[in-house]
Amino acid sequence: MRILLCNDDGIFSPGIAALADAVRDLGDIHVVAPEAEQSAVGHAITIAYPIRAKKVRRNGQFFGHAVSGTPADCVKLAVSQLLPEPPDLILSGINLGANTGISVLYSGTVSGATEGIILGIPSMAFSLCTFTNPLWDSASRVVRAMVQGFPRAGLPPDALLNVNIPNLPYEELRGVAAAPIGKSRWIEEFDARVDPRGNTYYWMNGALHLYDDSTENDVERVREGFVSVTPLQTDMTHYRALASLSGPVWELP
Amino acid sequence: MRILLCNDDGIFSPGIAALADAVRDLGDIHVVAPEAEQSAVGHAITIAYPIRAKKVRRNGQFFGHAVSGTPADCVKLAVSQLLPEPPDLILSGINLGANTGISVLYSGTVSGATEGIILGIPSMAFSLCTFTNPLWDSASRVVRAMVQGFPRAGLPPDALLNVNIPNLPYEELRGVAAAPIGKSRWIEEFDARVDPRGNTYYWMNGALHLYDDSTENDVERVREGFVSVTPLQTDMTHYRALASLSGPVWELP
Repeated sequence: MRILLCNDDGIFSPGIAALADAVRDLGDIHVVAPEAEQSAVGHAITIAYPIRAKKVRRNGQFFGHAVSGTPADCVKLAVSQLLPEPPDLILSGINLGANTGISVLYSGTVSGATEGIILGIPSMAFSLCTFTNPLWDSASRVVRAMVQGFPRAGLPPDALLNVNIPNLPYEELRGVAAAPIGKSRWIEEFDARVDPRGNTYYWMNGALHLYDDSTENDVERVREGFVSVTPLQTDMTHYRALASLSGPVWELP
Repeated sequence: MRILLCNDDGIFSPGIAALADAVRDLGDIHVVAPEAEQSAVGHAITIAYPIRAKKVRRNGQFFGHAVSGTPADCVKLAVSQLLPEPPDLILSGINLGANTGISVLYSGTVSGATEGIILGIPSMAFSLCTFTNPLWDSASRVVRAMVQGFPRAGLPPDALLNVNIPNLPYEELRGVAAAPIGKSRWIEEFDARVDPRGNTYYWMNGALHLYDDSTENDVERVREGFVSVTPLQTDMTHYRALASLSGPVWELP
């Protein structure tokens, strides 16, 4: 099995090293990842600038290709140019920080797996739900179990799997739970500052605000200590709203 | 009615001027748009760098705020910082180039409207389906009709409306048709070149490949000369696949 690894934290991040460690003996591993951090890039691609790829080493040996672009760029370039054959599986991550709730839409990590599904390749995204003291060894063991179990999940070809791992010692994890995305939004708190030349600039900041009536969602599952798995689709059509649009809503006068 | 205008082609693009012309007398108009082109940025936001906003003039008078960020940044900053009160309606566009089929996922124009819906504000995205000889006056008349009819559509609060306008003289447009996103993908054709220093770089290029079994989709509607309208949602959960995940697919060994 040929496995492509990508991420959004960059090819020198600890998360992609933990991902590689998790699956090293499960297939023929190829790493193609951004040369610099690409967090919160959503499903961005690079069309206005050229893209470059260079081979990089970690710990004294060849690790993979660093790409001057986004996670979606990495997957497209890997599949189309860099790999000898298209991969059988794409793994994106392990992201430092949760990709639950509405964060899914902004996530570069998820975007790497989304691009895989668009290209017809089974894909998974992994995030470790912390920004401090990440327990990579624990997350790595989870990833390995998830990848080994992936064929049994029987996902349809248009679904990627988004996996969020609580930052707990492996023995304290309560299991794996399937859950939808939690209804939520970011409450922005822009931090306005003045630079030495007297000009205002803003730091975007905020916190995820969950307003889900149900507790059956990915945010809650992670809080409870479960590894949360959510199948995601790429068709954004709001079919219920579409059905209500029959009839002449708009006339062109 | 307070209306926020944004786009992804940048605040000095002709498309946002055509949008402003279309709705100038329909409300209190505020323009907050990227200072530079942000095409294909998807739902990216700027968290690793500060964001700046400056007032810009067009044709000798104040036009709006130019923001050093993405369309989603513009909407967040406008709603949170720049406008006196949150807007009642957000209009994104008019984009130069179609945002039909899978392009919806990559679109900065759509992303502006997506961010509006996340913030609880009714939002529409407009694209003119051409890259050459855009008929802005025709598109502008369509936008005006769509905005005036928008309340009648009765969309649920979690649906934004994605509008694609054929590049035809207004009189040749065949009407407005609701349609889902066409099943499609981009077929990439990376153009590999060598720079003067002997290093390889790639231009991403490609064409939208429609593989939809049905002709009931946005790509076909535009081809037929209809203005295509598609409600979009922000919940990417693949509910059908989720339902199949009940039971113990993954054990943590």
